[in-house]
Amino acid sequence: MTEKRRRRLPRQVREQQIIDVAVRVFSKRGYHAASVDEIAELAGISKPMVYLYLESKEGLFIACLRREAERLVAAFQGAAQGVVTPELRLRAGLRAFFSFVSEHRDGWVVLHRHAAELSEAIAAEAAQARRAVMAEVTDLVRAGIAESGGPARLGDEDAEFVAHTIVGAADSLTDWMAEHPAESPDGMTRRLMNMIWVGMRNVLDGETWTPPPPPPPS
Amino acid sequence: MTEKRRRRLPRQVREQQIIDVAVRVFSKRGYHAASVDEIAELAGISKPMVYLYLESKEGLFIACLRREAERLVAAFQGAAQGVVTPELRLRAGLRAFFSFVSEHRDGWVVLHRHAAELSEAIAAEAAQARRAVMAEVTDLVRAGIAESGGPARLGDEDAEFVAHTIVGAADSLTDWMAEHPAESPDGMTRRLMNMIWVGMRNVLDGETWTPPPPPPPS
Repeated sequence: MTEKRRRRLPRQVREQQIIDVAVRVFSKRGYHAASVDEIAELAGISKPMVYLYLESKEGLFIACLRREAERLVAAFQGAAQGVVTPELRLRAGLRAFFSFVSEHRDGWVVLHRHAAELSEAIAAEAAQARRAVMAEVTDLVRAGIAESGGPARLGDEDAEFVAHTIVGAADSLTDWMAEHPAESPDGMTRRLMNMIWVGMRNVLDGETWTPPPPPPPS
Repeated sequence: MTEKRRRRLPRQVREQQIIDVAVRVFSKRGYHAASVDEIAELAGISKPMVYLYLESKEGLFIACLRREAERLVAAFQGAAQGVVTPELRLRAGLRAFFSFVSEHRDGWVVLHRHAAELSEAIAAEAAQARRAVMAEVTDLVRAGIAESGGPARLGDEDAEFVAHTIVGAADSLTDWMAEHPAESPDGMTRRLMNMIWVGMRNVLDGETWTPPPPPPPS
């Protein structure tokens, strides 16, 4: 038994491998058409083993959803860390999001397209993922409002409103991005900064967003 | 036969009645749990009659989706008609959308939440509805860009980008609106005008959007 165990991959590593494959298969085939047989075969393990680790096709899908949502939140957090102004944090967050979607197209499709009515458990997990992302963005916006120190008296409700605007816009824009594959995450970010930071009024007047010069070292 | 026909409601009226009921039932129960029995009973007709008009539960759902999408597009078009500046058309369009969602909450849920993975035919209809709305918004943005006559050289791609931003933001904000039932469609519109017309930079500096004074009569 000890011998056998030593030769095995740790459970977590094995699970991650299965999830990597499952994300690809679910994205390619959709939930209903995806088969656990194919996932097991591509992961190089037996089907009972997949069930042992992740219980059911539904459990497998939920694990995929959860992992991809964690990755997205981590990308988002990592991007904003240490960035000094609300403007540049917004830029960093948007860029992280668009980079995530362009690099993890498979994962994005799973996270995003296939969840709503598959099952209650899946819908609950997808709603949870969306809330986690929304909470991150709301925190960033709240911090931005606090730091800007401007005369605007914006509260938590406003921060949530702004977060819903940003998340909804970015989400919808992944469709536009799919139709314009030549557009880079940086380009997407610049375009969206124009819309929500500079404002359409000013864009129509000819202004475009450019990153501000870096602050002097403190 | 002629006698009988005269006593019947015209097919279109009957269909609209069935659809009215179906929208409510689908919204309340979700697609899977909704039963054609209940829809027939609430519409005051026999179940075979429902099938005669709308073929199947799927056909019924698609008819609901289509009707609600047409209503939304019509509300949108009506609102923008005869409004003279891009700014006020944006306001009118947003207000029409938020009014639609708050008045037709049932229809919005059908249009919006239950469509993605139910069946290929339903997903196709939902995608078509989304494209129709996007096309309307893109047209408005394109006209706005052309009329603004400013120095910005924005093309069709930009108009589509802006439309995706607006549609995605407004869509996502219906969640925020559901959590803030005291907020009026006008209030939603003012908030979103701040975000995408004035720009967050200026909002943080204390500016808030107010409708411009009406133009002098021409």
